[in-house]
Amino acid sequence: MRAAVMYGAGDVRVEDRPDPKIHEPTDAVVRVLRAAICGSDLWPYAAMPATDQGRPMGHEFLGVIEEAGSQVPGLSAGDLVITPFTWCDNTCDFCRKGLQTSCRHGGRYGFTGVDGGQGEAVRVPQAQGTLVKLPVAADSALLPSLLTLSDVLCTGHHGAVKAGVSRGDTVTVIGDGAVGLFAVLAAHRLGAGQIILMGGHTDRTSLGRDFGATDIVAERGDKGVAVIKELTGGLGAHSVVEAVGTQESMMQAIRSTRPGGHVGYVGVAHGVELPGQELFYAEVHMLGGPAPVRRFLPELIGLIWNRQIDPGRVFDLELPLDQAAEGYQAMDERRAIKTLLRP
Amino acid sequence: MRAAVMYGAGDVRVEDRPDPKIHEPTDAVVRVLRAAICGSDLWPYAAMPATDQGRPMGHEFLGVIEEAGSQVPGLSAGDLVITPFTWCDNTCDFCRKGLQTSCRHGGRYGFTGVDGGQGEAVRVPQAQGTLVKLPVAADSALLPSLLTLSDVLCTGHHGAVKAGVSRGDTVTVIGDGAVGLFAVLAAHRLGAGQIILMGGHTDRTSLGRDFGATDIVAERGDKGVAVIKELTGGLGAHSVVEAVGTQESMMQAIRSTRPGGHVGYVGVAHGVELPGQELFYAEVHMLGGPAPVRRFLPELIGLIWNRQIDPGRVFDLELPLDQAAEGYQAMDERRAIKTLLRP
Repeated sequence: MRAAVMYGAGDVRVEDRPDPKIHEPTDAVVRVLRAAICGSDLWPYAAMPATDQGRPMGHEFLGVIEEAGSQVPGLSAGDLVITPFTWCDNTCDFCRKGLQTSCRHGGRYGFTGVDGGQGEAVRVPQAQGTLVKLPVAADSALLPSLLTLSDVLCTGHHGAVKAGVSRGDTVTVIGDGAVGLFAVLAAHRLGAGQIILMGGHTDRTSLGRDFGATDIVAERGDKGVAVIKELTGGLGAHSVVEAVGTQESMMQAIRSTRPGGHVGYVGVAHGVELPGQELFYAEVHMLGGPAPVRRFLPELIGLIWNRQIDPGRVFDLELPLDQAAEGYQAMDERRAIKTLLRP
Repeated sequence: MRAAVMYGAGDVRVEDRPDPKIHEPTDAVVRVLRAAICGSDLWPYAAMPATDQGRPMGHEFLGVIEEAGSQVPGLSAGDLVITPFTWCDNTCDFCRKGLQTSCRHGGRYGFTGVDGGQGEAVRVPQAQGTLVKLPVAADSALLPSLLTLSDVLCTGHHGAVKAGVSRGDTVTVIGDGAVGLFAVLAAHRLGAGQIILMGGHTDRTSLGRDFGATDIVAERGDKGVAVIKELTGGLGAHSVVEAVGTQESMMQAIRSTRPGGHVGYVGVAHGVELPGQELFYAEVHMLGGPAPVRRFLPELIGLIWNRQIDPGRVFDLELPLDQAAEGYQAMDERRAIKTLLRP
């Protein structure tokens, strides 16, 4: 099969790889219909040391079951399914608490002999717990929206939940990438009264307005914080979603939150050091980390299925799998919000 | 009046200072009956640059109202009262949410023209909102226990609340100072199933056992974390209270917490930098900061009044105010858990 492999910063190649096969009775093999490039894929794209081995890329995909192992009773060949960006048995004590990211039998695509999602097919471990059937056909116009469920839609939702968004609250979202835009969408749906989106790319922030942002702040760092304070009676927001993961954006998040408020941080942190004393006196709750996507799937699938949300709009570039490299480059240069790949 | 003033690291002097007077109609002047030295006073005792001005010390005291301003209708001369370590109006929007530490009219003792608590008398701003009457006489044997309400008892309680302690949970408390010991007491009262106290001073940890600790771990850092993991089925504790405030203890807290668990950090952070990426993947909730003591006072006064708890046991050194310097030194050298001063 063909699949995207990264060999170092800026070096993504689509090449032939072995077809995935069932290894364990709990596996399923999924033929990929649509895959996406994630903002978090841009971190290795910017900084991964060169390697001969290469790393299979991608953790956002949906597709059709090609073969299901003997311990995957709920799925059959031909089922259209979505995967969270990590797999899980969905039965262990952590999963039962809604923390599927810490599943005792969980793992991540693209590592330890499991394919990445940016390819023609993937062996999915713990398929019964991981994969969720989608109520559409393979030619459905909803596929792009459903594809966002794998990670970014649920991650934005997770940020809003962790930030404790409630009806009438003031919410600030830091970052106008797909996750930030979906945090706006979630905050809007959860009833926030004011939603301030911090971002400097007008194509993105205008989509943010469509998703429910009431204010756009292009300033960053301390200047950005000052504007947030101005917009919130000098106090900062009740709830802040951090959807970038840099030192600047994390500090922006903490300083934009009013005392007693919550920062939901969902941008994968890179080179971030949080000053303990400032955090102590800020009286800000810090909650976040990777989104337990599996937990959110049933609810959010329903919203897409009922046409209540249209998250597929974040895909502003669609390419055949073989042009994955161009998809990475376009996102890296901020020419595209998010790239959809068709194998 | 006589009061303790710090002139630099290791340099505490008790000297004459002006008698406090009512400045604002919302003030009251309290004649101090008992004051305490706080673990957090040891930070400047260790590191404060020498100064000619001096800083009046202390934020834990109880006493008798000497004079109440015209806008303090609830208090009269002769009332025995306790103060939280910060003052507050207890009516603003933050106070109403139980966040009296962020009161719009709040402040801290020993700064901006307000006395510290380690003296014969203190002008208390916002007295109506701040001070709470105690149902005892000036010679009550409960005074030491009631004195702990000013800070350490409520701070330990706050740590347990922020760490989300619930019935049957496994709790780890890092630090065997007064705050850590009171976090143990709170965890026990909140129904924790297993309470692991991390501390190396056997006089303190044995008091911790009396307060409800089921296990004592003397190891620190990564070794300490390994023992916690061993004691908790490899997972770490549901709830961890950080009651020290150093880099080592904060990392110990984060690494001793199971995914989805909570760190309640109440040790005043000094020189702490939290690694963002580790925090991100730890999936640990970070909640903490200064305790909104005023919120907890009514409930915890009742527990002492009904003899359900006996927190006064942390005072293992009692000195006249004039020997405050010895009180600091004894705590700094870990010869005393906590010092009570009698003006």
